[in-house]
Amino acid sequence: MPLTQHQPLKDLISRFKFQKVLDSSPQTKVLSLLGTIDGKDAIITAEKTHFTFDENIKKPNPVDGRSTPIFYQCENEYSIVNGIQELKEIASNDIYHWGLAIIKQDMEENPTARLNLIWPATPVHIKKYSQQNFHLVRETPEMYKQFVIPYIEKQYEQGRLDWVDDVLYGDVESERIVYKDFSEDKKKDGFIILPNTKWDGVNLDSLYLVAMVYRDDIRSVRDLKPSDRPWLIQLNNKIRSIIPACYNFMIHADELRIFIHYQPSYYYFHIHIVNIRHSGLEDNIAAGKAILLDDIIDNLDFLGPNGYLDKTLTYVIGEDNELWKGGLREAAMEQMERDGIPKLPNIVSGFDPKSKTLNP
Amino acid sequence: MPLTQHQPLKDLISRFKFQKVLDSSPQTKVLSLLGTIDGKDAIITAEKTHFTFDENIKKPNPVDGRSTPIFYQCENEYSIVNGIQELKEIASNDIYHWGLAIIKQDMEENPTARLNLIWPATPVHIKKYSQQNFHLVRETPEMYKQFVIPYIEKQYEQGRLDWVDDVLYGDVESERIVYKDFSEDKKKDGFIILPNTKWDGVNLDSLYLVAMVYRDDIRSVRDLKPSDRPWLIQLNNKIRSIIPACYNFMIHADELRIFIHYQPSYYYFHIHIVNIRHSGLEDNIAAGKAILLDDIIDNLDFLGPNGYLDKTLTYVIGEDNELWKGGLREAAMEQMERDGIPKLPNIVSGFDPKSKTLNP
Repeated sequence: MPLTQHQPLKDLISRFKFQKVLDSSPQTKVLSLLGTIDGKDAIITAEKTHFTFDENIKKPNPVDGRSTPIFYQCENEYSIVNGIQELKEIASNDIYHWGLAIIKQDMEENPTARLNLIWPATPVHIKKYSQQNFHLVRETPEMYKQFVIPYIEKQYEQGRLDWVDDVLYGDVESERIVYKDFSEDKKKDGFIILPNTKWDGVNLDSLYLVAMVYRDDIRSVRDLKPSDRPWLIQLNNKIRSIIPACYNFMIHADELRIFIHYQPSYYYFHIHIVNIRHSGLEDNIAAGKAILLDDIIDNLDFLGPNGYLDKTLTYVIGEDNELWKGGLREAAMEQMERDGIPKLPNIVSGFDPKSKTLNP
Repeated sequence: MPLTQHQPLKDLISRFKFQKVLDSSPQTKVLSLLGTIDGKDAIITAEKTHFTFDENIKKPNPVDGRSTPIFYQCENEYSIVNGIQELKEIASNDIYHWGLAIIKQDMEENPTARLNLIWPATPVHIKKYSQQNFHLVRETPEMYKQFVIPYIEKQYEQGRLDWVDDVLYGDVESERIVYKDFSEDKKKDGFIILPNTKWDGVNLDSLYLVAMVYRDDIRSVRDLKPSDRPWLIQLNNKIRSIIPACYNFMIHADELRIFIHYQPSYYYFHIHIVNIRHSGLEDNIAAGKAILLDDIIDNLDFLGPNGYLDKTLTYVIGEDNELWKGGLREAAMEQMERDGIPKLPNIVSGFDPKSKTLNP
């Protein structure tokens, strides 16, 4: 069967041969597995769905005209109220009771999990989904020039960003587009909004969208200059005007967390848009990875004409990241030495985790 | 039936009359419902279980002595590999495939959820489990002066920060102190490090400490000026030198996420220190609340002599916050109007949650 022919997900998954668990988060109920399909590496990532409850409406608040979400009922037959098929008590103490439940499932109304398959997966994919150690790196403008620029250029040379054109100009994912603002004569102002693959597309509480711009001269926040400020302000205002309207004003402009990532997962300027209620998302919204668009706009007011090119950016990086292995590690270690941070003692024996001091 | 007699959880849940959803977290898949059982308030909290897979162990890494989790296999019949009962494809793009799945359930081996019932629940329980609405606020220097400064001054006048002195100079919590650097003649450089109450004090993966400074002229990041830069750099370096030593170098200097909160929970300058791996802290490390100390140090290099007093700071605020109720709300709404964000339409009828457009 040629690779270009579409293979149903069901067939692919049925041929999946498990090798190992790449990552597991009991907090978010996400699991990533490495295996093979037809001898080629495959990554399955699964995330449990949230609980089902009925449609919610927003009740207008008489004070300011805003509406407050009112969750109507849990009369849905798959809800925690009506969907319980089995219940087992674990413990009970005064007014507190604990138990386990089995809730009715249904492919349309209440599936168990969302699945994501990458196949064939490259070593880069495997690294991305693997559990690893992380470090905080203070990237100076010099470090950016020395390590990051060559890395980005390699990405482009290798055609790893060709898919961006397919999304912006092709038919790929066109049925998933939430909003498109594009005209050939005003390409600079154009942008497209898509659901992030992390979102189930249903539950507004976990709304997660991505805006990609048609401007192709910005690879990351590092390329933003004070002259881009009006463009960013306009983009920010457009996003905050459009998204609420796209979702029937069930979410308001000031309930959107709008940010970029540095380092981004790909070096073509895109903006993350997430429901402000959606707090966790692993480190996706964490300081040390996420930078609010509003903060960028404000900083560009203070930065010199080179904008973010002259700034020191501090972020969390995984040991598997090519940038870490390609020089950032050594640069970060030198930096710590200059800061006077003591080097690690050579701990071989005499180690007592109970005591707060090192045995000689 | 007297209340003291044990009632099976199954019977209690079956008599549960739903009233409303108190809280819902799509990230952690946790849902809290308020209802009544026999006319008395009851709170059901449910959390989806994690995926089932076989035992895992931690294997020490010979290179650096750290241990890496090794997960054995997924041969369990309820695992994502063997337990799929139904599979539905959602989309497919090149090597990326998305779908939904139903996985076999079993009360002993793979239940859907853990349940927790509080009954009878008090108003304090209900408030604790209730969700508030949040908003993103872009606080200009003017808004800070108009709303935040008077609020901070009121806090001090009411003696709400007297406990800080007890911690710094008294015996309170002295047995909890992780590190203290204080001498009367160099008070300005002094600081104290304590465990955050969110930390269990045991699991280093979730290490969470707080550093409080002896300088009492800084109420928040807003009071930091370029002249404070050397002091902050020294503080940052000291923290990164001391913490690893306090914990036997089980954690390294570049594995600490060091940040402040704005708005802080109290207006006396303090710094949060968290293991970089610890992402599950609700919004504690989120952009829009957390600001990295390294970013503050870098920004002070660009900001004018007034430092953070002249900056616009964007953050998430809850509707229960006194600041929101004390003027920020109106200021934020005026700001959105100036930004040209359309006001909410007056949705009274003609609302169709299935369609993406508003009916007139």
